[in-house]
Amino acid sequence: MDEDEEQVIADTLEAFKRYGEIMELKINIRRNVFRSLKKEDQMQLVEFEEHLNKIEEAVKINCKLANDIEKIGRSQFLSGKKYKESRSLKMGYMDKVLTTIKQFWRDWSKDGMAERDKSYKPIIDEIELKFMDIPINDRKKINILVPGAGLGRLPFDIALKGFSVQGNEFSYFMLISSFFLFNYLESSNKYFLFPFIHTFSNHRTNEDLLYKCTIPDINPRSVIFSGSNFSTSIGEFTEVYSQRSMESFFDVIATCFFIDTAPNIISYIKTIWHSLKPGGFWINLGPLLWHYEKDACEKESSEDNIPACSIELTLETLIQLIKNSGFEIDKRETINTTYVGNPCSMLKYIYESEFWVAKKKDI
Amino acid sequence: MDEDEEQVIADTLEAFKRYGEIMELKINIRRNVFRSLKKEDQMQLVEFEEHLNKIEEAVKINCKLANDIEKIGRSQFLSGKKYKESRSLKMGYMDKVLTTIKQFWRDWSKDGMAERDKSYKPIIDEIELKFMDIPINDRKKINILVPGAGLGRLPFDIALKGFSVQGNEFSYFMLISSFFLFNYLESSNKYFLFPFIHTFSNHRTNEDLLYKCTIPDINPRSVIFSGSNFSTSIGEFTEVYSQRSMESFFDVIATCFFIDTAPNIISYIKTIWHSLKPGGFWINLGPLLWHYEKDACEKESSEDNIPACSIELTLETLIQLIKNSGFEIDKRETINTTYVGNPCSMLKYIYESEFWVAKKKDI
Repeated sequence: MDEDEEQVIADTLEAFKRYGEIMELKINIRRNVFRSLKKEDQMQLVEFEEHLNKIEEAVKINCKLANDIEKIGRSQFLSGKKYKESRSLKMGYMDKVLTTIKQFWRDWSKDGMAERDKSYKPIIDEIELKFMDIPINDRKKINILVPGAGLGRLPFDIALKGFSVQGNEFSYFMLISSFFLFNYLESSNKYFLFPFIHTFSNHRTNEDLLYKCTIPDINPRSVIFSGSNFSTSIGEFTEVYSQRSMESFFDVIATCFFIDTAPNIISYIKTIWHSLKPGGFWINLGPLLWHYEKDACEKESSEDNIPACSIELTLETLIQLIKNSGFEIDKRETINTTYVGNPCSMLKYIYESEFWVAKKKDI
Repeated sequence: MDEDEEQVIADTLEAFKRYGEIMELKINIRRNVFRSLKKEDQMQLVEFEEHLNKIEEAVKINCKLANDIEKIGRSQFLSGKKYKESRSLKMGYMDKVLTTIKQFWRDWSKDGMAERDKSYKPIIDEIELKFMDIPINDRKKINILVPGAGLGRLPFDIALKGFSVQGNEFSYFMLISSFFLFNYLESSNKYFLFPFIHTFSNHRTNEDLLYKCTIPDINPRSVIFSGSNFSTSIGEFTEVYSQRSMESFFDVIATCFFIDTAPNIISYIKTIWHSLKPGGFWINLGPLLWHYEKDACEKESSEDNIPACSIELTLETLIQLIKNSGFEIDKRETINTTYVGNPCSMLKYIYESEFWVAKKKDI
């Protein structure tokens, strides 16, 4: 691990550590605003302070998870390193903690299943269909890659079907959290989590805002895979999988809400082609919310390591590019999905995701 | 007009003026990225540069509107003032130009009618229902206020039904644009407009990105109102309408995607109560996307004049507050709406808007 990477990890851990403090600040600003109102106005909102107190309690409960992730992350990733001095909070990093908490709801709560069924199930069903003739005990020889694995539920669910799966991830928010999840969680339903307390907008009821779930719905450590058929690789997708050792390695590459993270989609496609076996399948589901579109236009980016490159294609151009790149598209479908979306919010983000199965031509 | 206000106007006009330049920059960054690709990769995307050229042409066409607004705005609002020196572009202001262009599509294009039918029609229908016994020629005595009038289509459509309507607006992006629209537009379908070229994400086809409409679908100046029953007031809602002269002035106040612009919703409600006649109606439609939620937590705000206050209520608490404030709620309904949303985008923002009719109690 080089020094830059250590800095990113230390910054990531700092953000987890300061989650409680930053949320407390947000709540206290509201409390002070409320107390600065005229007494007659305060009387109109008699339950408002009590509501803030409840959010404060919820933050404390979320803190248990954030603090445990930070503790385990520090001992695993920065063991023996001296990063105890107070660091400043990196811009944009607290938002990533808040997203990570929502991702726990999506990937590892019982209620997140509705979202997972829209996004992960079509992919898993397609994989099972492709290999339906192979009994579950013989599936270890089938190698499947899940780039952008996030908190690991999609690769985990694929591994449960008997396949050998490797998740790949770049973000230390995801990597540290999933390391914690896969190695230190003692039981299912270990933590309470309030995933939707971080915005105060578009809630119908106070109860909706204070919606609580437990995680994980299943303890990944309690599931004994037949041998070791589940692994995670750390690093940027094209760097890891364009290596010679990865040539024609995978039977399936499954990308879910991933391809639009590409600064250069051409190298993503080339890497997929390179690491798939001839005749292997690329299964995709997701929108085209090109992650670097905004940054590529701003000289002063809010984050480090932003590539100075962004190529944003429309779906039709992308599909043509995929065909030009040595793939045959077997199947296409549009599937309405959500992504860490509060089901009770008055504002819904509906991603009309594109699902496809592309076969690497056997040249 | 004080000097601060003049500065805001000059900054607003500067943003309209520089629209073409900033978009050109965004396109040129893509062109340079593309040309820096390996020749073999460029060959995979033979139509990409042509696509960028078409976006560039579309920007030039959008520029005609932006430039005309700037020209008229300067002569009307800064006449004789010396603001010709080069100004820096205010942070966040270009985004407001892009939103204004989309608002023209929403409010003044034929295709925007689908959105207007969801948001404006329920309000207009309710007003007509309340005053169905009054013939159109006698409706001038009915005073209706539309706070947050934007580009003025809702107040305009209400005025077409014979009522006396005042729109109120605070943003000079909206004020200058609607001044231009209501006073200088010569004919309907005068301008072509490409409302969806400002993001390159989530487009299915190049054609979708380059969707073109004409504006306005109706020339407001061609409609002769029976007398002068349509006006616009400039200023912050509570400042203008909590004045004594406004007491019990309006028969109806119609708020559409407006109430969540409040830093302090209590003073919005008090102002509505103050300026409504006893027995008058407050008709509302919109979500609760509290505009100042984010700013209230950030010490360094990206914009000027951000209040240090934000009170974000859930819908149930807000409804209780309205009842406590001297209103009787007659009717409630949830209506799914969009707001300047590209109908062809792979990402849809669905606002589950709350519609209500609240009657000021006759005390």
